[in-house]
Amino acid sequence: MIDQIPYHRRKRVPMSIFNQDLPTQAANYEPLSPVSFLRRAAAIRPDQLAVVHGTRRYTYREFWQRSQALGAALAKRGVSKGDCVAIMAPNTPEMLEAHNGVPLIGAVLNSLNTRLDANTVRFILEHGNAKVLLADRQYALVVEEAMTLMENPIPVIDIDDPMTPDECMAACIGETVYESLLNEGQAVLNDETQATWVAEQFSQVTDEWQAISLLYTSGTTGNPKGCVYHHRGAYLNAIGNMSTMGVTHNSRYLWTLPMFHCDGWTFTWAVTAAMGTHVCLRSVDPEVIFGLIEQHDVTHMCGAPIVLNMLANAPKKVQKRAQQPIEIATGGAAPPSAVIEAMDAIGFNVTHLYGLTETYGPATVCIPQPDWPDLQLEARSARMARQGVHYLTLDGACIMNADTMEPVQRDGETLGELMIRGNTIMKGYLKNTQATDDAFAGGWFHTGDLGVQHPDGYIEIKDRSKDIIISGGENISTLEVEESLYRHPAVLEAAVVAKPNEKWGETPCAFVDVKPGKKVTAQELMDHCRKTLAGYKIPKHVEFGPLPKTSTGKIQKYLLRQLAKDG
Amino acid sequence: MIDQIPYHRRKRVPMSIFNQDLPTQAANYEPLSPVSFLRRAAAIRPDQLAVVHGTRRYTYREFWQRSQALGAALAKRGVSKGDCVAIMAPNTPEMLEAHNGVPLIGAVLNSLNTRLDANTVRFILEHGNAKVLLADRQYALVVEEAMTLMENPIPVIDIDDPMTPDECMAACIGETVYESLLNEGQAVLNDETQATWVAEQFSQVTDEWQAISLLYTSGTTGNPKGCVYHHRGAYLNAIGNMSTMGVTHNSRYLWTLPMFHCDGWTFTWAVTAAMGTHVCLRSVDPEVIFGLIEQHDVTHMCGAPIVLNMLANAPKKVQKRAQQPIEIATGGAAPPSAVIEAMDAIGFNVTHLYGLTETYGPATVCIPQPDWPDLQLEARSARMARQGVHYLTLDGACIMNADTMEPVQRDGETLGELMIRGNTIMKGYLKNTQATDDAFAGGWFHTGDLGVQHPDGYIEIKDRSKDIIISGGENISTLEVEESLYRHPAVLEAAVVAKPNEKWGETPCAFVDVKPGKKVTAQELMDHCRKTLAGYKIPKHVEFGPLPKTSTGKIQKYLLRQLAKDG
Repeated sequence: MIDQIPYHRRKRVPMSIFNQDLPTQAANYEPLSPVSFLRRAAAIRPDQLAVVHGTRRYTYREFWQRSQALGAALAKRGVSKGDCVAIMAPNTPEMLEAHNGVPLIGAVLNSLNTRLDANTVRFILEHGNAKVLLADRQYALVVEEAMTLMENPIPVIDIDDPMTPDECMAACIGETVYESLLNEGQAVLNDETQATWVAEQFSQVTDEWQAISLLYTSGTTGNPKGCVYHHRGAYLNAIGNMSTMGVTHNSRYLWTLPMFHCDGWTFTWAVTAAMGTHVCLRSVDPEVIFGLIEQHDVTHMCGAPIVLNMLANAPKKVQKRAQQPIEIATGGAAPPSAVIEAMDAIGFNVTHLYGLTETYGPATVCIPQPDWPDLQLEARSARMARQGVHYLTLDGACIMNADTMEPVQRDGETLGELMIRGNTIMKGYLKNTQATDDAFAGGWFHTGDLGVQHPDGYIEIKDRSKDIIISGGENISTLEVEESLYRHPAVLEAAVVAKPNEKWGETPCAFVDVKPGKKVTAQELMDHCRKTLAGYKIPKHVEFGPLPKTSTGKIQKYLLRQLAKDG
Repeated sequence: MIDQIPYHRRKRVPMSIFNQDLPTQAANYEPLSPVSFLRRAAAIRPDQLAVVHGTRRYTYREFWQRSQALGAALAKRGVSKGDCVAIMAPNTPEMLEAHNGVPLIGAVLNSLNTRLDANTVRFILEHGNAKVLLADRQYALVVEEAMTLMENPIPVIDIDDPMTPDECMAACIGETVYESLLNEGQAVLNDETQATWVAEQFSQVTDEWQAISLLYTSGTTGNPKGCVYHHRGAYLNAIGNMSTMGVTHNSRYLWTLPMFHCDGWTFTWAVTAAMGTHVCLRSVDPEVIFGLIEQHDVTHMCGAPIVLNMLANAPKKVQKRAQQPIEIATGGAAPPSAVIEAMDAIGFNVTHLYGLTETYGPATVCIPQPDWPDLQLEARSARMARQGVHYLTLDGACIMNADTMEPVQRDGETLGELMIRGNTIMKGYLKNTQATDDAFAGGWFHTGDLGVQHPDGYIEIKDRSKDIIISGGENISTLEVEESLYRHPAVLEAAVVAKPNEKWGETPCAFVDVKPGKKVTAQELMDHCRKTLAGYKIPKHVEFGPLPKTSTGKIQKYLLRQLAKDG
């Protein structure tokens, strides 16, 4: 295939008749923004159920009204275009409202990972110049401590959700509570003398390249980097998700994926674009999840493989099979095929997406090929664990030699780095020109993931560039070793890292968490791996116990690497 | 709801940290263009069946290859960015290829209505500065005559489709045939020494506001106006269609709608975006259509109400019921509820879209409300005949008082003009600043259609502004009278226009085509109308006979108005 010249290097030619006197104008141009989805839903389907949370119910009219009230109240308190508004909350209606009310006034939403410590919260709030922090009462202690650490503490608004479990409920620490803030905003909206002022505040998105949100990478080492999203990318990725997952106005989407993770992979906006129903969820508890699935006839969910694993391994008494298959998208790491099979068995249809914070979450999808349904389950699961092909709304995804920036052979074997480009890539890292330039070098976003490209064009990631093990000069994909371990019936979770070795340089070291009630020895696991792996790939050490994870369910391999090094 | 300030009037504020050092670049920005859909489909699903025509079959790899060959050959012959390429062809693979190969090199595709006379063809080719004309042999006589009328005739390429019926086949009149042109292009693509030149030609879309196509309104009087489409709008409307009609990679789309009509309402690109299969069709013949539906298990179609009427009234022996409901979108005129009911009865699920050439075809959709399925069929059909709500990819549609540009009361009664705005509105009319300015006055596109807005926000068109009848000071919607006539079992088609009257100013005059084998008198029709219409709305005259139509199936009311005036 003939490759293209990068758009920014294309030459301009003289104007043709088709460009004469035909500029953009109000009737035929508006900046793409995902806030338009909520405005439209409220206009054309006002009585549709938009948000469910416990006993709370909001129609699209109410969802839009509350989002506007939030925007008006923040603007009244001085938040203006380009200002940052931070939020620390689980998947509640307030999070959804913030995803619309904040961008509505041209401000930038910074969703904080709810498991962060006070010092990291301080770092992020200062780095992003946050003007105000909306915080669920569950995190009041961390927030209070972060404020004492800040040189210039910022106003805090308490989100006082009645669904907060008693044991998590801390005191209100902010200057007001969220519902009072909405009342302030509603009073402004009701005041006709302020209509012109409000219209002005709600018209601050003048360019679709404006920032819409700020999300920090989980950053396993050092200070996290802030990915800046733009309205154009958020709009397009939401449409990409809606189309890829088939979300419609008949869909009920259960929020098993944290919204602070890539703005919920942009499903915060995608479900609204489709005018489906958001079913909120404060914490990932299989019993609660299966209960909500039954109660609301849930059709769609997303989650890291760890969430799927949790559902597949939930006690039989809480597992309820839905009447029809539930579409569940997973990503963040390749789902082990054993997990795909287990989900299949309890009535979930797994779609494997891949992406990073830098790509608004999903960037590729493993679309099943026509012949896959005829494959044996195991072979099919292995295919489905591939990362697949780039989203409709992206320009391309390709495994390349990072030195030459040439695509590698599509032979399923030649290792290279996954590069992505297109309209759903972040603007760049906040206040970090060097990292931005490195990430976008050569006109592609460098994911840092190593993989191969199959003859059919499908991409398969073998490892993070920093995770690969080099043993006696041979590359070992830790994912491949983990995949083998996961197929042992006693293994609940497994992670493999490099352990320094004098003779080989590095050798694989496995950390394994065993399923409740099961037993297995290190030797048994090594023997199991020997059935499918070359000798040098078999773990030379196996450690047992729960695995350390980030708040988004990613196993913290840097901690395991440290353990392997020290052990 | 608080309205927005038009985007072009919004003020700029100082740059925030989120705009510093974060410009668009090759990794995170590309102009939106529907050509990207075909490039992606060929890259990620190359063996998928893309196009079917008779015994011809093209995969997505072949479809893209042929489109690239077309682009390369045209570029080699001197077509460059901003140049116009005209095509006059029925719904064949060549039309689909032209919709990709021409924009690929930054040129502008001008699809000609296949029923145009030689002088109008001449006018359009000269007005659009066409550099070359691709013409199906069926239209060789008209094309040949048009060339003799042109001051500077342009090169013609003959499309020599083996499916052309013998009785329609004229001599080849061009300088070469289409397949030879593709061979020229393929030779260029195969020549490695020209790779850089080709890459340059295929990189001419530098701005998504560039023109992608030129389409002339059917123009019932005077010279037609040329609507200029942009890449951005074509991309977005295609996505809007894909999402609205639920087109997926499992869809087979039958081409009952002319592709020269708004680029096939942008389904030319939408079906490719979804990676579905295009089933071509040279002419609208119910027997052929039902045969193709059965042969290819068709899932989606579009067509004017006249096409639906033709299918619903086809002889029982050719009507084959599909195994599952076929999604059929209709528009161009409100489908009479009798037609919706008849289609329902033979296994079609009708979706009512509304739009104009200026809006890339579909701009609104009548999404069924939750309570509609419980309504009686007749009441439900009446709801479904409403124009509904604006597309996901538009900013708004609203019935307004054209003098004040204020929305009318949403009472289902107050008449106003339908205004639309957003990203899927044309750039404007070619070389006609006055018409463009008039059409976009006040920041909205003025459709010229008169209607009401219901309390639920749904729009219902009552008439074209020029079609409304004013009798004794009362407005009469000709659509309402036609709707009543269509409900008479003997009526195949009906059109109502104003007839000048000394006493009343105007009175309704009906033109009626009766179903084969049925009989009805003027008095019987008037009595029938009396059951549902106020006295002043009942036609005072009824004329019988076939109705004159445009090539797109629109009844030519201006001819009927002339007849009514003279008669």
